[in-house]
Amino acid sequence: MSSEQRTEINSLGEFGLIEYLTKNIELQNASSILGVGDDAAVIDHFGKQTVITTDLLVEGVHFDLMYTPLKHLGYKSVVVNLSDIYAMNAVPTQIVIGLAISNRFSLEAINEFYEGVYAACEKYDVDLVGGDTASSQKGFIISITAIGEVAPDKYVKRNTAQKGDLLCVSGDLGAAYVGLLFLEREKKIFMESPGVQPDLEGESYVIGRLLKPEARRDIIDFFAEKEIVPTSMIDISDGLSSEIMHICKQSQLGCVLYEEKIPVAEEMKKAAFKFEIDPTACALSGGEDYELLFTIPQSEYDKLTMNEQISVVGYMTAAEEGVQIITKGGNKHPITAQGWNHITKNHD
Amino acid sequence: MSSEQRTEINSLGEFGLIEYLTKNIELQNASSILGVGDDAAVIDHFGKQTVITTDLLVEGVHFDLMYTPLKHLGYKSVVVNLSDIYAMNAVPTQIVIGLAISNRFSLEAINEFYEGVYAACEKYDVDLVGGDTASSQKGFIISITAIGEVAPDKYVKRNTAQKGDLLCVSGDLGAAYVGLLFLEREKKIFMESPGVQPDLEGESYVIGRLLKPEARRDIIDFFAEKEIVPTSMIDISDGLSSEIMHICKQSQLGCVLYEEKIPVAEEMKKAAFKFEIDPTACALSGGEDYELLFTIPQSEYDKLTMNEQISVVGYMTAAEEGVQIITKGGNKHPITAQGWNHITKNHD
Repeated sequence: MSSEQRTEINSLGEFGLIEYLTKNIELQNASSILGVGDDAAVIDHFGKQTVITTDLLVEGVHFDLMYTPLKHLGYKSVVVNLSDIYAMNAVPTQIVIGLAISNRFSLEAINEFYEGVYAACEKYDVDLVGGDTASSQKGFIISITAIGEVAPDKYVKRNTAQKGDLLCVSGDLGAAYVGLLFLEREKKIFMESPGVQPDLEGESYVIGRLLKPEARRDIIDFFAEKEIVPTSMIDISDGLSSEIMHICKQSQLGCVLYEEKIPVAEEMKKAAFKFEIDPTACALSGGEDYELLFTIPQSEYDKLTMNEQISVVGYMTAAEEGVQIITKGGNKHPITAQGWNHITKNHD
Repeated sequence: MSSEQRTEINSLGEFGLIEYLTKNIELQNASSILGVGDDAAVIDHFGKQTVITTDLLVEGVHFDLMYTPLKHLGYKSVVVNLSDIYAMNAVPTQIVIGLAISNRFSLEAINEFYEGVYAACEKYDVDLVGGDTASSQKGFIISITAIGEVAPDKYVKRNTAQKGDLLCVSGDLGAAYVGLLFLEREKKIFMESPGVQPDLEGESYVIGRLLKPEARRDIIDFFAEKEIVPTSMIDISDGLSSEIMHICKQSQLGCVLYEEKIPVAEEMKKAAFKFEIDPTACALSGGEDYELLFTIPQSEYDKLTMNEQISVVGYMTAAEEGVQIITKGGNKHPITAQGWNHITKNHD
């Protein structure tokens, strides 16, 4: 947060603040008929179905402003919602945003946050069409609702995977969690010895994955281009295990996951070893990767090989066979949806 | 909040909590194709335009749980959003809800809140189709986004009032503010002498208006039935003055408001006198009435007389004539958008 200038938010009043924050919006989608400035926004969806999702992010719970630049926070807040829209095989078109802010934040700070919001809107061709700004007694609270559109009945749910389907993920996993470990470590050092400069040399990949994630629009575009309709899909926000459990439970199936097939970046592996933790554990239980997990019929396999951003990591089985991982050593274990706390225990 | 039973929210986990809270939802609108339980909800809007609005409510800023029953809070949180949809001349169809809750709240408490949410959904034929539940470090934070539909180009904005149009309001104004004064007074007494029983005898009307407001669906239905399309409309959440200023400013017009025409309930007048404040000041500057303020062409006047819930309170003028109130004594004053703090000063 820059310290050069500080304009008190109170000096604008609520309406002034909204006007200030939204004065440069240019609507990009033909379906955005009316945006910010009235009781509600108006969206036209002739011949399409609307997809909607919402997320609430709370300072101290979902993010730590000690190491999260506000611009990145604004960007990420939008992206995590868009990721949910893409996970429906839909295209995001609009967002509305609610902000509650304590008076410890200046107008410049809020502006930085909105710069990130607008950067994400521009990158993903999404319109900000409304919002609400309120005071909070404490901290920074962000509520974002995203709207998307999809051709009738082309949306993809979690509960429609089929036995025998291939289980696939986009990108690589676990890096955001390791990025978090670095930032938490530096924060701790800083709290104990404020003079020490942060040592994050060489960790830009994992830290970038945490602070500025991207949603996998490219995968949805690829599906459209190749006429692939996944049988089920979910975005990976809580770690691979947890999301696999959702698909299996909701589709009433089991699955086999191959540890050696789980995509992890070299940078993540190196970084994980510095913390003496198992990269696979990070991929399975670390969150916030915002990659896509989906299933497709085996007959579609050939189409997938054209996209190096997609890895086949296993296949769906009958429910009775359970949800299993086959380790690099060839052992079979049941997968459990473990939280981040479990990771440090996992590697020993 | 009942103290009979207390189930810790942690005992369910986030997914368990969502499942628990949403297990009884039955979707009511044909356009609600997919509700809670996936990455996003899916809404079908063939041949209609979608209207969307969002509100963020923060404990200690927007509500005080010392005198706000959680069930009423759930009800009101929904209603204030629906009111924004009706203010577009649209019909609400879906909501999504985000909740951040500190661990001081039990599952029973959250359940009470949701009972109110569901009561409002049922009353207004709205589907809850998604949400997000998070922890907060402190307090109770509610984010609601409402979606509605309207026939193409039938939505009503704030900036389209015409010179000569009649300025109209629904229901009566100022009561919610006086209700708040009573509850704040009783809270103060209770804080000073916890043994004293609250004395709210005879004030059920004004307190009800604050704690359990309704959105004016009936007015929107009446417009549809009588084929009235207001030229502009806004809901009255911040007091009549403030909303009139919005319509005048955005439509680049002035107006004349007659004090004697402002609808106030007898119960509100009596209650205001107990606090020695002017009922007109309460109507002008008190908030949270959730009535509708709208303009219609004079040619539509005859249709309005059939609805005793609608009062004509003035008319729109050229911008140069300013935004004026004509008092009961016949004096003309400029209207300013005054906050609640101004009211006590106003009556002396």
